Amino acid sequence: MKASRFFIGTLKEAPADAEIVSHQLMMRAGMIRRVAGGIYDYLPIGLRAIRKVEKIVREEMDAAGALEVLLPAVQPAELWQESGRWEQYGPELLRFKDRHQREFVVGPTHEEVITDVARREIRSYRQLPVNFYQIQTKFRDEIRPRFGVMRGREFIMKDAYSFDRDTDGLKASYQRMYDAYVRIFTRLGLRFRAVEADNGSIGGSGSHEFHVIADTGEDAIAFCPTSDFAANVEAAEALPLLPARGAADAALTKTSTPGRAKCEAVAELLGLPLERTVKSIVLAVDQPGATPDAAVHTQIWMLLLRGDHSLNEVKAFKLPGLGGARFATEAEIVEHFGTPPGYLGPIATRKPVKLLVDRTVARMSDFVCGANEADFHFTGVNWGRDLPEPDVADLRNVVAGDPSPDGRGTIELCRGIEVGHVFQLGTKYSEAMSATYLDEAGKPQPLQMGCYGIGVTRILGAAIEQNYDARGIIWPTSIAPFEVVICPMGYDRSETVRTEADRVYAALLAAGVDVVLDDRGERPGVMFADWELIGVPHRLVIGDRGLKDGKVEYQGRRDAEATLLPVAEADRLLIARLQEARGAAA
Amino acid sequence: MKASRFFIGTLKEAPADAEIVSHQLMMRAGMIRRVAGGIYDYLPIGLRAIRKVEKIVREEMDAAGALEVLLPAVQPAELWQESGRWEQYGPELLRFKDRHQREFVVGPTHEEVITDVARREIRSYRQLPVNFYQIQTKFRDEIRPRFGVMRGREFIMKDAYSFDRDTDGLKASYQRMYDAYVRIFTRLGLRFRAVEADNGSIGGSGSHEFHVIADTGEDAIAFCPTSDFAANVEAAEALPLLPARGAADAALTKTSTPGRAKCEAVAELLGLPLERTVKSIVLAVDQPGATPDAAVHTQIWMLLLRGDHSLNEVKAFKLPGLGGARFATEAEIVEHFGTPPGYLGPIATRKPVKLLVDRTVARMSDFVCGANEADFHFTGVNWGRDLPEPDVADLRNVVAGDPSPDGRGTIELCRGIEVGHVFQLGTKYSEAMSATYLDEAGKPQPLQMGCYGIGVTRILGAAIEQNYDARGIIWPTSIAPFEVVICPMGYDRSETVRTEADRVYAALLAAGVDVVLDDRGERPGVMFADWELIGVPHRLVIGDRGLKDGKVEYQGRRDAEATLLPVAEADRLLIARLQEARGAAA
Repeated sequence: MKASRFFIGTLKEAPADAEIVSHQLMMRAGMIRRVAGGIYDYLPIGLRAIRKVEKIVREEMDAAGALEVLLPAVQPAELWQESGRWEQYGPELLRFKDRHQREFVVGPTHEEVITDVARREIRSYRQLPVNFYQIQTKFRDEIRPRFGVMRGREFIMKDAYSFDRDTDGLKASYQRMYDAYVRIFTRLGLRFRAVEADNGSIGGSGSHEFHVIADTGEDAIAFCPTSDFAANVEAAEALPLLPARGAADAALTKTSTPGRAKCEAVAELLGLPLERTVKSIVLAVDQPGATPDAAVHTQIWMLLLRGDHSLNEVKAFKLPGLGGARFATEAEIVEHFGTPPGYLGPIATRKPVKLLVDRTVARMSDFVCGANEADFHFTGVNWGRDLPEPDVADLRNVVAGDPSPDGRGTIELCRGIEVGHVFQLGTKYSEAMSATYLDEAGKPQPLQMGCYGIGVTRILGAAIEQNYDARGIIWPTSIAPFEVVICPMGYDRSETVRTEADRVYAALLAAGVDVVLDDRGERPGVMFADWELIGVPHRLVIGDRGLKDGKVEYQGRRDAEATLLPVAEADRLLIARLQEARGAAA
Repeated sequence: MKASRFFIGTLKEAPADAEIVSHQLMMRAGMIRRVAGGIYDYLPIGLRAIRKVEKIVREEMDAAGALEVLLPAVQPAELWQESGRWEQYGPELLRFKDRHQREFVVGPTHEEVITDVARREIRSYRQLPVNFYQIQTKFRDEIRPRFGVMRGREFIMKDAYSFDRDTDGLKASYQRMYDAYVRIFTRLGLRFRAVEADNGSIGGSGSHEFHVIADTGEDAIAFCPTSDFAANVEAAEALPLLPARGAADAALTKTSTPGRAKCEAVAELLGLPLERTVKSIVLAVDQPGATPDAAVHTQIWMLLLRGDHSLNEVKAFKLPGLGGARFATEAEIVEHFGTPPGYLGPIATRKPVKLLVDRTVARMSDFVCGANEADFHFTGVNWGRDLPEPDVADLRNVVAGDPSPDGRGTIELCRGIEVGHVFQLGTKYSEAMSATYLDEAGKPQPLQMGCYGIGVTRILGAAIEQNYDARGIIWPTSIAPFEVVICPMGYDRSETVRTEADRVYAALLAAGVDVVLDDRGERPGVMFADWELIGVPHRLVIGDRGLKDGKVEYQGRRDAEATLLPVAEADRLLIARLQEARGAAA
């Protein structure tokens, strides 16, 4: 591509609403433009990067045996009513009526449509397994779209759906997709981690997220540097931090702690480590009455965590009895504990409540907790003596330094941007929508489904969050809008420069290199600034001064200094370097 | 691709709602499945054909210097309000409100969005010309979607938009797109014609449609086999059919024509050729009063055509004074002519009307027309004697045998399916939306725009309407889902067959041929029927019987008989044949 025939829309300043660096740089590099909240134009530079991501995703999906289809963006409401998601999905689901007043949605995802395909097309076990995928524009009416392509409303996704005879088949299909994702993110040149993920309301054990590691990531990831363990903190198992419960040495004592509503303040006042305190969290679960007219019954739960720990809502709200839990209101707390929050505890509640304690709390002894009376705590509290043996569960978020759940090291934390998700759906959709196949005995069986997503447009943002500097983006070569830029010094003035630049350009093009020749006649400073902002990973500078010595300047986007290459060999050396990089990624 | 790993969804019967052959065959071949009216799933076979069309379109757009972008499907109402189309566009425009009650549309086309891009990005004449294109899913809420992908609601389109400094630039950009379209449809392997098209309400002279020639086409096309002339009948100029007006020989006579309301019946009764009669068409144009409260004034027009001709509404309604015309009501006709339709004429109307006659009528003499009295006509009517010299215009549809407007032959008619449209928009959108650039003098000038569409999904239907037989589709090789199918006889039983089939398959794959090996173990009849229905243009049959003599069978999809090829050379011969075909199309 010659730059004079291309469209370069670089900007000096990012707009004020661009809060994170990838959003700022995508705007400044002329990749995207805002049309409405969370809705963007992709200008040529941006689309080139998208197409490269799509190509790698497509190649690996094809290699893994998945078959590409294209399902409609506009989907009839009936399918969503069948699956039950017409009611369950919130206002993120864009619903509308057509001119005949029939209800439709603009698809945020395609489980319903693909299950409808499967129940019509799959008749026999002989057609299984099969995996359909598409790369398509989706729409989710996010309440607060932000961060550019990271949380847009209209975005491109690769979604795949596998169909199998049984759970063994599903696990095999899942593993094939997992392996394909590892290859995809490796080829994309990203530093990533596959982590165990929460299964949401669907259950089952199989769900992994693929995260691009970046300090600005929205997700916290726990991983063990000495083992394979990695999980979203949402889903990471927290082990008890004490090997066994200590002896009850102290007497139960009601202690004045005036104005000390927080564990930190109580520990400080009492001169105890924070790890000796226990915090109370009160939840309420509304249970509908036996008949539609009957009153709602609300069950109050008290959850106990060590003073320095925090509640993991995802894990807690999946526990038996805690489905649909919410934080209790102050009125409910006063009713059950006789005091407002700040001095709550499990001893002597006004009304009976369900008690559930974290694994670590269950092993604590001589601990401190609220006394259900303003300005008072109990010290020297012990299980089995002052309180019955408690129900125990994994309630807390892991923290750095925790033992890894696989017993093979210590947990560290990092931030990640979720760019992929693989999920064993099981029969959730096939049962709701009667998608069955006939087994060898001619008996209908529900299809076992998996679903597998990659956020194509989000990958651009994630790649930038991981790869940038003060001058702009630093693309991995595999998804750079251009692999190489040739900057001739005086292309319009020096015939020597023009001849040599044209020759190298033609040689790179002929070798299949995605190269741009900056023939715009801009000053070197403008050229360099544009291409560094855009993030082209390899640059050749060709000028009269170097050519006199038979040299051109090569500079990688991360290199501090340029290196000189013999002009006659510049194209060959660069091609070799690119091929080497491709080989390493593949 | 091995067929056992692919998804083949051929059907014995097409559904009842598939009215035309392309719709029936796309359903039966397993290319598409209906999700809702005008909304389809594209199964793997269908998507393969789409991707091949897209690839050719993309390559030629790139080669023509257009730059690919991706604009949002969901567009804010404000842009459509600016252009005026929020009001003008009918219920085909799908409008909805997002969760914040802001109004949006799902884009049926992108003139507004691209003009918004242009006014933000194009500042100087130095950035011109530029041409942006995209290949994208669009939505039009057709009142009666039908014919499968030919008139769907959700469909894939390539739309391009050029921006130029002036009309000369626009004409050059237009010509580049016209030429690219010729290359595209040639490479697609379709028999097509570029025809002059109606310019709609925009005016200007530059608009061509590209039609795939097929008897089932919705459009009538006039063309001259001995010259370049070709036009949509909607837009085709009709010359007068008489070289000059004849002498007035007959006397004006009021003649009884009881119950003869049609020209044919009058001519028969009077023993005259139909070409001596004139038919009257009455139109009404409602003109708003000078103030909002003032009454609407309605102007009545009488249009005269020769008895065997038909009115061309597209041409007529663009004439000065006839914008927004409608057919007059019976009450309006009685009020102005004193009689209901059937015996109307230009002589002695009850109230004055505007008279406009077709070019041929203006040269007629001694003709017959209604007498504005039931059961009576005038004969021997002559201009200048019985009526003043009339206003003349081109009002009629051309018919086969008409002289070509370029004076170089005689018109013939055929049917066509519109698959492309190139259009000189001029400044319609740039003026409405203030999209300007600064000229050399630093003065803002409106951008001259062109727009250029190709119906990607419709091309599949059009290609089939042009290429099918009783057994199924006959794809042009360039867009066939597979170029070649290998049908081994007894792949699962004969090692010789399997070895040879695998060898040829590998050799074709290695040469970049898009080949499918049918390893499903189906009977020959099933294999042949499937691949003939799907329309794979080249077939190799490999069986023990032929291999004994060192032969395999080759059959082109249009060939009546198979030919024998030496097995050792089969791949080489087939590759050579495909390359030759590619060379011819490129």
